[in-house]
Amino acid sequence: MSDKGVFCPDEGINHIKGFKTAGVSCGIKKENRKDLALIFSVVPAVAAGVFTVNKVKAAPVLLDLKNIKNPVTRAVVINSGNANACTGRKGMENAGRMVTTAASLLGIKPEEVLVSSTGVIGVQLPVEKVEKGIARAALDLAEDGGDEAARAIMTTDTIEKKGALKLRLGGREVKVGAIAKGSGMIHPNMATMLCYILTDAAIEKGMLQEILKEAVDSSFNLISVDGDTSTNDSVITLASGMAGNKPITQKNEDYYKLLEAYKTVTAAMARAIVRDGEGATKFLTAKVVNGATLEDARKGARAIISSNLVKAAFFGEDANWGRILCALGYSGAQFDPAKVDLFISSKNGGIKLVESGEGLVFDEELASRVLEEKDIEILVDLQDGEYEAHAWGCDLSYDYVKINGSYRT
Amino acid sequence: MSDKGVFCPDEGINHIKGFKTAGVSCGIKKENRKDLALIFSVVPAVAAGVFTVNKVKAAPVLLDLKNIKNPVTRAVVINSGNANACTGRKGMENAGRMVTTAASLLGIKPEEVLVSSTGVIGVQLPVEKVEKGIARAALDLAEDGGDEAARAIMTTDTIEKKGALKLRLGGREVKVGAIAKGSGMIHPNMATMLCYILTDAAIEKGMLQEILKEAVDSSFNLISVDGDTSTNDSVITLASGMAGNKPITQKNEDYYKLLEAYKTVTAAMARAIVRDGEGATKFLTAKVVNGATLEDARKGARAIISSNLVKAAFFGEDANWGRILCALGYSGAQFDPAKVDLFISSKNGGIKLVESGEGLVFDEELASRVLEEKDIEILVDLQDGEYEAHAWGCDLSYDYVKINGSYRT
Repeated sequence: MSDKGVFCPDEGINHIKGFKTAGVSCGIKKENRKDLALIFSVVPAVAAGVFTVNKVKAAPVLLDLKNIKNPVTRAVVINSGNANACTGRKGMENAGRMVTTAASLLGIKPEEVLVSSTGVIGVQLPVEKVEKGIARAALDLAEDGGDEAARAIMTTDTIEKKGALKLRLGGREVKVGAIAKGSGMIHPNMATMLCYILTDAAIEKGMLQEILKEAVDSSFNLISVDGDTSTNDSVITLASGMAGNKPITQKNEDYYKLLEAYKTVTAAMARAIVRDGEGATKFLTAKVVNGATLEDARKGARAIISSNLVKAAFFGEDANWGRILCALGYSGAQFDPAKVDLFISSKNGGIKLVESGEGLVFDEELASRVLEEKDIEILVDLQDGEYEAHAWGCDLSYDYVKINGSYRT
Repeated sequence: MSDKGVFCPDEGINHIKGFKTAGVSCGIKKENRKDLALIFSVVPAVAAGVFTVNKVKAAPVLLDLKNIKNPVTRAVVINSGNANACTGRKGMENAGRMVTTAASLLGIKPEEVLVSSTGVIGVQLPVEKVEKGIARAALDLAEDGGDEAARAIMTTDTIEKKGALKLRLGGREVKVGAIAKGSGMIHPNMATMLCYILTDAAIEKGMLQEILKEAVDSSFNLISVDGDTSTNDSVITLASGMAGNKPITQKNEDYYKLLEAYKTVTAAMARAIVRDGEGATKFLTAKVVNGATLEDARKGARAIISSNLVKAAFFGEDANWGRILCALGYSGAQFDPAKVDLFISSKNGGIKLVESGEGLVFDEELASRVLEEKDIEILVDLQDGEYEAHAWGCDLSYDYVKINGSYRT
């Protein structure tokens, strides 16, 4: 096993010491599709969370912001098909009922339960159905229930998102596994994105929060724009401590190894969300290198990947580099336009389009071959420092408009 | 004539005392379409300008930022079909040649000339053609050349944009006329928007700059997002002083009357740009009322009108109010989600969708009738203060993607 750990894209939150999971159908979604997931830690775990910064927060998020402060967390209950957002006092009551139902069935305290919802906004939860679903999920809890849980949190997703990484901390094998949901309505206005990361590492709660925050900044926050979040976005992690490693209480070598593992897993989830973009025909990576600061590189990469004009140009396989420079120009990043080089590449080759801020005469035929591929990288060299960042996104297609023009009805 | 003046939508920059204008074809665009406009003040005029804040500024913008400081301005020369952006030193030379050519033909100083370009980025100007065009335009200059000028600045526009307003300042009739170009590539990343406003009012240069800035903030900046500007955006105004009013040198009654006239004219140009949105099927107005501050109301209105999800929902005629609240929530505006009311209306009626932050059960049939109209207003009542703002936008349609997927090729 290398220092960086081994990433297993087909594994999710199965067989992580201390955890049992389940995914069932409770009848919110049509056709008996799974719509309720339960995560349970058989031992007292510590939790950390990153939640939407939208002023309009769904009831489950408001409840989590309180419960996440509890020193111990034992369970997360998640429903799909209904976001329990803009549902007022009744919505808060229903989120509370999800928590108390899970707590009483699992024999734990309500403040040890977190809750998430995703789906339609502004409709009250069918809470009796949800309560029955929680009961059924509690009976189904198993060490290999993770795939059902991954399916149960999906809404417009076409595939479930999961991944895990094994690493060693002080001679002990530690596992970090995740499931996520989210699809193409990200960008520039992200629809609900949920991610649950379980680990058997032993780590102090404050350290876990720092790791999660940094991992989210380098993954999910690079597929959306800061602040541009939905009413329900939540990334939650639970650490059971069952791996038996020396508990992480400071920023030592183990801390940074675990941080890298979290970054790898969350980046994989973020890319999976982009790849499942509704109507997307291209997977785009914007890489900005040699920026004066990390923030400049990130701002540039995000602005490029968020631009409707850039996205539409890639859908049309048009090497319209002017739109890329334009997005970079309004990104807020500091740079010297006269120093910028710009390249595009795919597995069909690479081509330089801009040198020192000026367009080059380029081989249009090669550009067409580069652009006809599904995976394309846009590389911007600011020649202004040593920081780099990337952001991931998808193109803007007819199908995006079609799907999002009639989501509710 | 009322205090607010009389708006004449069919008049542009014709017959404004002191000015002559022209629009000709110089061969940048295909099929002999007009692509070069010239504005000339027969007397020494004062100018003010608001230019793109994009870090990547086209050569003509860089030149204007210098020349606009000159106390006297006599001419503006504008070409369409080529943006002279990302064209390096050669591009600066070409912008300079446009200025010196106009100056020598008109017998004025180079620093008294402003220049704009719009069109494809990254290709050098065919400057000899442009110079010949300037010579032809100088011969064509006329008091009623404004409509040709309006046509000569168009790129993807389908109709020319013009409007004028007559008002009285201290017993004198004063005229404010404008032409503009810009279409649907605005939002969220505005393609080049150009606007030229001529007035015969007598006004001190500093006062004129303040009026222009405030008018732009309440018009063009509400159809785009601050900073989200292209490489070439420019709004330029010239005042000849020929109306004979008492020169405006302070913020007196005349100042505020002229400010209102500028606001009316620029708002009309902004709406015309949105209505000419590429592929747009709906004209949307987002009105946010009773905000705690003007900035909160503006942030909210802009975020709603810029959201791809909101725009796609209106294209699909879907009353998806959750997306509107979500956009409001990430707008950065301060408000209490539990106080928000939301309505939509068109000439077919109005309907309340949200009360105190919660979705109402509403008449879906009435909602469909409201949404099938072309002009729709979204009204958000924050119930948090007394400030209001509006923003204009269009929907996101298949045709937007189609047109912008293959603009360059």
